[in-house]
Amino acid sequence: MMQRYRYPQKNDWEKLVRRPIPEHVAIKDEVAQILLDIKVIGTEAVRRYAKQFDRVALEHFEIERGALAQLASQVGLPLQQAIRTASANISAFHEAQVRPATFIETLPGVLCSRKGIPIERVGIYIPGGTAPLFSTVLMLGIPAKIAGCKEIVLCTPPNDEGLIHPAIAFAAQLVGIERVFAIGGVQAIGAMAYGTHEIPRVNKIFGPGNQYVTAAKQLVSAEGIAIDLPAGPSELAVLADESCNPTFVAADLLSQAEHGVDSQVILLSDSERVIEEIEKALEYQLATLPRREIALQALSNSRAFLVSDLDQGMSLLNAYAPEHLIIACRDDEALAAKVVNAGSVFLGNYSPESAGDYASGTNHTLPTNGFAKSYSGVSVDSFLKYVTFQKITKSGLSSIAEAITSMAEAEGLEAHGNAVRIRFSE
Amino acid sequence: MMQRYRYPQKNDWEKLVRRPIPEHVAIKDEVAQILLDIKVIGTEAVRRYAKQFDRVALEHFEIERGALAQLASQVGLPLQQAIRTASANISAFHEAQVRPATFIETLPGVLCSRKGIPIERVGIYIPGGTAPLFSTVLMLGIPAKIAGCKEIVLCTPPNDEGLIHPAIAFAAQLVGIERVFAIGGVQAIGAMAYGTHEIPRVNKIFGPGNQYVTAAKQLVSAEGIAIDLPAGPSELAVLADESCNPTFVAADLLSQAEHGVDSQVILLSDSERVIEEIEKALEYQLATLPRREIALQALSNSRAFLVSDLDQGMSLLNAYAPEHLIIACRDDEALAAKVVNAGSVFLGNYSPESAGDYASGTNHTLPTNGFAKSYSGVSVDSFLKYVTFQKITKSGLSSIAEAITSMAEAEGLEAHGNAVRIRFSE
Repeated sequence: MMQRYRYPQKNDWEKLVRRPIPEHVAIKDEVAQILLDIKVIGTEAVRRYAKQFDRVALEHFEIERGALAQLASQVGLPLQQAIRTASANISAFHEAQVRPATFIETLPGVLCSRKGIPIERVGIYIPGGTAPLFSTVLMLGIPAKIAGCKEIVLCTPPNDEGLIHPAIAFAAQLVGIERVFAIGGVQAIGAMAYGTHEIPRVNKIFGPGNQYVTAAKQLVSAEGIAIDLPAGPSELAVLADESCNPTFVAADLLSQAEHGVDSQVILLSDSERVIEEIEKALEYQLATLPRREIALQALSNSRAFLVSDLDQGMSLLNAYAPEHLIIACRDDEALAAKVVNAGSVFLGNYSPESAGDYASGTNHTLPTNGFAKSYSGVSVDSFLKYVTFQKITKSGLSSIAEAITSMAEAEGLEAHGNAVRIRFSE
Repeated sequence: MMQRYRYPQKNDWEKLVRRPIPEHVAIKDEVAQILLDIKVIGTEAVRRYAKQFDRVALEHFEIERGALAQLASQVGLPLQQAIRTASANISAFHEAQVRPATFIETLPGVLCSRKGIPIERVGIYIPGGTAPLFSTVLMLGIPAKIAGCKEIVLCTPPNDEGLIHPAIAFAAQLVGIERVFAIGGVQAIGAMAYGTHEIPRVNKIFGPGNQYVTAAKQLVSAEGIAIDLPAGPSELAVLADESCNPTFVAADLLSQAEHGVDSQVILLSDSERVIEEIEKALEYQLATLPRREIALQALSNSRAFLVSDLDQGMSLLNAYAPEHLIIACRDDEALAAKVVNAGSVFLGNYSPESAGDYASGTNHTLPTNGFAKSYSGVSVDSFLKYVTFQKITKSGLSSIAEAITSMAEAEGLEAHGNAVRIRFSE
């Protein structure tokens, strides 16, 4: 059911790894108009669009602390425990990312340093709808807290009663996000980008969303409000050799394919038998999957490549730059060392993608659409900006004075040199 | 000559620190058309626009190694030595930024790691014109080399002979940039974004430029080619108390003001006398400055604030988020600890901005226009992307299995849970 390619030529790789082009253009004007209204009119426009799109008329969007606790308490104990386990692992992995300030004397008396400072106000968008992505509350809220962001705002769509999903409330409370608003879609992005009487303007917006939310994030990012990552449909590539378990690989491919009809799945193997067994296992497992239709459609756009050897497979995968990459091969670690372009990599037969989606500790907000060639997934660094400092003594400055004045003169910037010369002319 | 404000009210800060809005819109369509031609037609379009805008008809744009060495040798020894000193300091500071991979076992058998991998192909744009910014070759080329980028491409406009500025050639050779092209403007950005027969397509584009280059970078970034930073005019803010030397501060303000008529200069002090003395020194120093007219115009748009105390000054500066910040105060280190939003900070009376522009070792590619609230300046990290890895044992997976399956079920993603369950059902 996947499209199969035997020994693809290197010349064809670029074509074979090309993603389908999404149709965003048509909605851009509509989204831009909503954002403009929110920017110019403010609170009233937010209320109007919330009523229109979230279908509930709210005077205030904020879920107060008591209401949040009440919602959170509706979550069953097993799910509470699951979220706690995930949270502990995500915290451990992200705390390990914190690094001390860099401090170095480049020359005697020329002291230079660089330190991470938390972005003051960040906004997190969590989609509601059929699948309440409370796991993303952890993936964005935990690094924001570890970074030390002063204000963390969370927006998520309301249900018919104007309340939010209990699991999202529980995760937000667990992480310590204090300001939670029941507002969804473009109006949520606009409110966080421009601020309203109630919702604070943030410096950076994080989180997934449908194509309207994605378009809104793109548009506000062009205005200078930072965003986490450019968006695209989720992807999984699997490199599998004879040591893999085809049943496991098929289950992993389906876990990606069920995300949506536009999900991307790629399988590479040096064994035709392995590809065939995975295909068989796919058919068998599909039969009982609730989101069968979605997965089937995603698979029909997906590709299986027979490659002459695993190194070539890795090269093709680096050209593709998958969001998620499973290496189900005997030499998984040697192959992982050859990864250049990927978001997150899963080694061996017991590292399913869903482990990273929820609970291993790594972040699941990752670069899709080939962006892994130049972008990183979300980390503590996503919530910091690094500022450099220099403190130079008079004798330190004298040791670089000649360099500064010569270069300034050659660049035609006289006053740059003056700023140094004048300090030694008194 | 600066606009003066005494004890501005906090309510007015936002208005007072607002940047003038640049007029980019008018050129966007023109730039988009050039980029589209390059994308669709390729090499021939690049040649045509190079001929039109760079005013020299070149068959090949690349400056071969021999020609590069020949150009580099034209640089006088004092300037060569200056560039070497700067290069050594920039290298030392940026090498200190390299960090080992993060490696942590979040639970027994759940091994997670994160490592920086160089972006494979990066492009550096260096403007030519009146001021050949060879210092930027160091600021971008050195961290790219330290990061380990496989291919570094440099584009800079040709002169009438189709050659590039000797100092740019020298800096490129010193840094070890092997592919240098004599091509400028939008056509250079387009060539690096889409690739031509001669110029490789890159994954990320760095470097300053005029408003056409800036618009081109914005446009290709919306297509997914990463860029270093959103652009804006250069800025300097100075916080000065009675311990400052007004002559030095004036020289620093002028070193910023001479950059261009749109340069931003802001002065804050808790002493009216200090502001007045700095103004006097400005007038005195302006008289002999070659770029007097530019500096004068920039200063007329600039602002001096008298604040009630230095802490309040720091708060106002954090609201402004300057690209460069000089703290010429007795308690410079205590005040520097209160910096939240700034690009690069200069402490004391002997740390002029021009030290950081050229030779202290810190990077001079910094966030302008308030972007310091959410963006960092260029560093080694700008040339890396971080990839996460997980290797989970069967018993490690069993310890998080319940968490994964519970959460997947609650998010309505059955196949995500299956991928775990199936590994324990055989």
